[in-house]
Amino acid sequence: MIMMPIMCSLKVIGPLAVLAFLVLVPVNWTGETLEGVKNLAYNDIDKLSISNVPDGSKRFWVHIVMSYVFALWTFYVLYVEYKEVAAMRLRYLASENRRPDQFTVLVRNVPPDPDETVSEHIEHFFRVNHPDSYLTHQVVYNANKLAKLVQKKKSLQNWHTYYLNKYERTSKRPTTRTGFGGVVGTKVDAIDYYSSEIQKLSEAEALGREKVLSDPKAIVRAAFVSFKSRWAAAVCAQTQLSHNPTIWLTEWAPEPRDVYWRNLAIPYFDLTIRRLLMAIALFFLIFFFMIPIAFVQSLANIEGIEKVFPFLTPLIETKSVRSFIQGFLPGIVLKIFLILLPTILMMMSKVEGFSSRSSLDRRSAGKYHLFLLVNVFLGSIITGTAFQQLKTFLHQPPTEIPKTVGESIPMKATFFITYTMVDGWAGIAAEILRLVPLVIFHLKNMFLVKTEQDREEAMDPGCLNFATYEPKIQFYFLLGLVYSAVTPVLLPFVIIFFAFSYVVFRHQVINVYDQRYESGGSFWPDVHRRLLIGLLISQFLLMGLLSTKNIEKSTIALLPLPILTIWFHVYCKGRFQSAFVRFSLQDAMTKDTLERATEPNLNLRAYLKDAYVHPVFKGRSHFDSPLLVPDEENNTLVLTRRSS
Amino acid sequence: MIMMPIMCSLKVIGPLAVLAFLVLVPVNWTGETLEGVKNLAYNDIDKLSISNVPDGSKRFWVHIVMSYVFALWTFYVLYVEYKEVAAMRLRYLASENRRPDQFTVLVRNVPPDPDETVSEHIEHFFRVNHPDSYLTHQVVYNANKLAKLVQKKKSLQNWHTYYLNKYERTSKRPTTRTGFGGVVGTKVDAIDYYSSEIQKLSEAEALGREKVLSDPKAIVRAAFVSFKSRWAAAVCAQTQLSHNPTIWLTEWAPEPRDVYWRNLAIPYFDLTIRRLLMAIALFFLIFFFMIPIAFVQSLANIEGIEKVFPFLTPLIETKSVRSFIQGFLPGIVLKIFLILLPTILMMMSKVEGFSSRSSLDRRSAGKYHLFLLVNVFLGSIITGTAFQQLKTFLHQPPTEIPKTVGESIPMKATFFITYTMVDGWAGIAAEILRLVPLVIFHLKNMFLVKTEQDREEAMDPGCLNFATYEPKIQFYFLLGLVYSAVTPVLLPFVIIFFAFSYVVFRHQVINVYDQRYESGGSFWPDVHRRLLIGLLISQFLLMGLLSTKNIEKSTIALLPLPILTIWFHVYCKGRFQSAFVRFSLQDAMTKDTLERATEPNLNLRAYLKDAYVHPVFKGRSHFDSPLLVPDEENNTLVLTRRSS
Repeated sequence: MIMMPIMCSLKVIGPLAVLAFLVLVPVNWTGETLEGVKNLAYNDIDKLSISNVPDGSKRFWVHIVMSYVFALWTFYVLYVEYKEVAAMRLRYLASENRRPDQFTVLVRNVPPDPDETVSEHIEHFFRVNHPDSYLTHQVVYNANKLAKLVQKKKSLQNWHTYYLNKYERTSKRPTTRTGFGGVVGTKVDAIDYYSSEIQKLSEAEALGREKVLSDPKAIVRAAFVSFKSRWAAAVCAQTQLSHNPTIWLTEWAPEPRDVYWRNLAIPYFDLTIRRLLMAIALFFLIFFFMIPIAFVQSLANIEGIEKVFPFLTPLIETKSVRSFIQGFLPGIVLKIFLILLPTILMMMSKVEGFSSRSSLDRRSAGKYHLFLLVNVFLGSIITGTAFQQLKTFLHQPPTEIPKTVGESIPMKATFFITYTMVDGWAGIAAEILRLVPLVIFHLKNMFLVKTEQDREEAMDPGCLNFATYEPKIQFYFLLGLVYSAVTPVLLPFVIIFFAFSYVVFRHQVINVYDQRYESGGSFWPDVHRRLLIGLLISQFLLMGLLSTKNIEKSTIALLPLPILTIWFHVYCKGRFQSAFVRFSLQDAMTKDTLERATEPNLNLRAYLKDAYVHPVFKGRSHFDSPLLVPDEENNTLVLTRRSS
Repeated sequence: MIMMPIMCSLKVIGPLAVLAFLVLVPVNWTGETLEGVKNLAYNDIDKLSISNVPDGSKRFWVHIVMSYVFALWTFYVLYVEYKEVAAMRLRYLASENRRPDQFTVLVRNVPPDPDETVSEHIEHFFRVNHPDSYLTHQVVYNANKLAKLVQKKKSLQNWHTYYLNKYERTSKRPTTRTGFGGVVGTKVDAIDYYSSEIQKLSEAEALGREKVLSDPKAIVRAAFVSFKSRWAAAVCAQTQLSHNPTIWLTEWAPEPRDVYWRNLAIPYFDLTIRRLLMAIALFFLIFFFMIPIAFVQSLANIEGIEKVFPFLTPLIETKSVRSFIQGFLPGIVLKIFLILLPTILMMMSKVEGFSSRSSLDRRSAGKYHLFLLVNVFLGSIITGTAFQQLKTFLHQPPTEIPKTVGESIPMKATFFITYTMVDGWAGIAAEILRLVPLVIFHLKNMFLVKTEQDREEAMDPGCLNFATYEPKIQFYFLLGLVYSAVTPVLLPFVIIFFAFSYVVFRHQVINVYDQRYESGGSFWPDVHRRLLIGLLISQFLLMGLLSTKNIEKSTIALLPLPILTIWFHVYCKGRFQSAFVRFSLQDAMTKDTLERATEPNLNLRAYLKDAYVHPVFKGRSHFDSPLLVPDEENNTLVLTRRSS
């Protein structure tokens, strides 16, 4: 799913670069302003940029016309691309095999009922309001504690295997201590100790299972309700059940491995509060993140360390260590924060209460995009922290902002070329070499791996982190658009980045990464919106830049561009978006009819029975003993990963 | 439907006024800044306002705390009110009698099919995709031409009656001329002439009817599709039929007399273009409306008139006429524009392509609200035209705008008191006296009324113009909120306006006006949003005002207020809005079940057969000869007005 934005960016920026080199570069080159100026430092890149055109020159009309051409080309590519993605998604939905989520709706905020259990209440409600099509439902258990038990048992079993292996190798019964980390406490026979511990935990787990299944309080007020046909599920997902829109909330169920179980029980009011708080937190994170960083950096200098850990003084005073601390530590603190950032943003998205992993990814990508926009793009153009910029912007007229930013755009071209090479190209190279995972794997191998099972897990390549890479793609797309009319020389560097990413990610997606869930292209509306935001920003900055160049009416001539862009966004949204958020009744009916004809004797109830069981109740792991549903023939149809 | 906003405003502003007089007035009164200043002109109203508190005084914290109290009180009232209106609407929907729109969905943008007529295509499509519940459908005819014929015939019949009456009174056969306006052409016997003309027109009309009914091109690509149950209609209205979201668009059908027939045939792409154009037009109307006015005003002076109509010179040069033209004409030109404004806005809304009269009213109200906000509220506080203001605002920092506006707020209190009395009170007085309709009635009676039929039509009180009055209520609500913390003395005037409006409109709605359609409170989300916009504006202006008063941290102390307001809006929207735009399946099912129990033998097909027939095909007017559906027993169930 990272491939589409890259392809799309290439399709937009490629022809833009050709056009810019054919038209704008000659116009700029022959401008010859900079040759006359002697006391200014300039390089050849500047001679190819808009800075080389004299103020008030008629040549700027070429740039204005070209910015229209660029916008129209971008519209064309984005429109075709959106159409194509929507069509692909529809084809995918039409052709995909039977899947439990096609028949299932996630119902949240089931209201409490004094006389009935949650399960009975749900059944009665749907039997009344969807009398012809209700099939079955699966309540959601609050199994977070149980999941912890299972996790702990898994770790103990791992130790057990480790000591068994050791015994086999050395023929000497290994011992361990019962206390913390196996280093304190009384000495016991390791194998016996772990067997008995596992035994105890198995009993606790069985008890826990029983308790969760029998305790009505362990059932959260949410359920997966399944219907007899895709048509009925599509109807239920799109309509409102109760006149109180905060209860009986329905949405199309995520596919089973995409469910984020922890968030299913959050009531409506809490959700609105959580989102408000997270919006405020995001604001502070974006504009004030430098404050804690600076604080840590101030601690992480020589005097700070000597003060807190006086015993380290002799070591620190060594010349090489000293210079390392002075030179690298502040940078490393910032780098660590930036590496942790996607994780922080993902945690914030989880607090917001979305119920599927795909929506969490999409939200995190949105947050990261905003962060890059403010702190990397604007932050590099205007020096100073984001908070200082915010202050300046609040005290400047709104027409001044594009001017201030636009004016410094041509000057920063060299910086962004370097940035593209250092961050973009090198990042992609590191991705193909998988440097970070390699280091992490070896660290794990040294310190953590005890059994084959562990090694396998350490080797797991994981899945592509959409929320980290997609905003980066967007950032380079924005860079390409902004510089297309200003300093076209930057475009080849961006294009090389995209081409390189295309090759690398294509390889990685096919050969390396697992796929955690199938999104069916549902991220595209977000990508499209952000691409258009990039286009809008580039237009405003060009307006600001040209308004400092003393050509009359340039602003008025460019004004229709952002209006057109916004209208294009509204049009595309109306035209295509619903293909990504709703499932049309016509398609559902077609699939239903087809299935009824080909498999008239399908037992849908059996098929759906355990599709949406909480993963701790699923007999997936081979060391998980009491299988609740061990011999269902459909058990392998749904690959469920542990997820809470 | 005008009563609810008035009541709600009274409930908010009343207690605000009491609190403000108890707390803020004493605080302001004892501030004693203005007494020290000798060279400034001030009056007693200023002494009660915030201007009387010295700069940097700790007293301003009272204003800050009170603004929180005011906001919380407003939230409370608006929340209770929204809840109440939503509950009332649900009760109304639950209790109302069987109505055709409960079973019907308006389908627009039916795609063309090469093999089938529109009607067949619709029937087949719904038989496939709603197999269990599709009942019948009614295609929409493009009968605009036919409606004109009917209109013309009605006028001729009116003349015919007039001459018949004349003949009865005078016993002399009246004559008329066949040419333009009955004053040129050959002289003929009037009664014979009009009989034959009516005869001709009747034939043409019959032919037209036949043609419309038989010509496949006269069928527009829209239809009213009816279902066997309310449940099925609710499902169809809320779900997406085709995967292409620009065809087979469904929405809950407006009630028959609410349908705006002309707009039913507009394709999706046209709609987006029309809305873009109208948004741009509205922008120009709001910010540049003074340009054509000033142009007309410049023509409407003495020299201008003498130039265009030289023969009027002697008349104009008369002293009294001269002074009238000089003194009143420019004002009258502006007044005429303001009287025409709601009509212009309604025309713009019609161009936007909404398909029901109620949505047209809502959209027009929104536009008028924006106009009042920019041109009356901001325009009165900051002198200069809206365009000049726009220019200033674009060249000022965003933090300066609330300052500039906020600073002048206290100074304009006297002006707004006068405005409330002159425009508000006097407007309501004119409304109860119905001065304008009285003048118009007498004008009509003198020049147009020829028969009893005409007199009846001239006497028709019409319906309450929601789109004109609701924005005015909003304007005074905004005034009350803005001045509640600044100059509480203004509040009693606003309260008197609301109380007066309440009494007057209550009387008018009950005794005078017709109801053109039943909205079921569907306008409330708009009203609520605009009330909150008023609250937001008042908060920003208070922030601006206080930031000029040299008290530290006042802006920061007030910053949570707008955030809270926006969150409150989002919360209320999520909590209540869907009650106004969707019909819940639970309620639909309850009503269906009840009806099935009480009337098991209802023939729904017969009931719905002609509910959504275009009004020209309805045998409503008594002079409308060939009734297509003369003896349907359900014909009176649906009162349909001529509407195209």
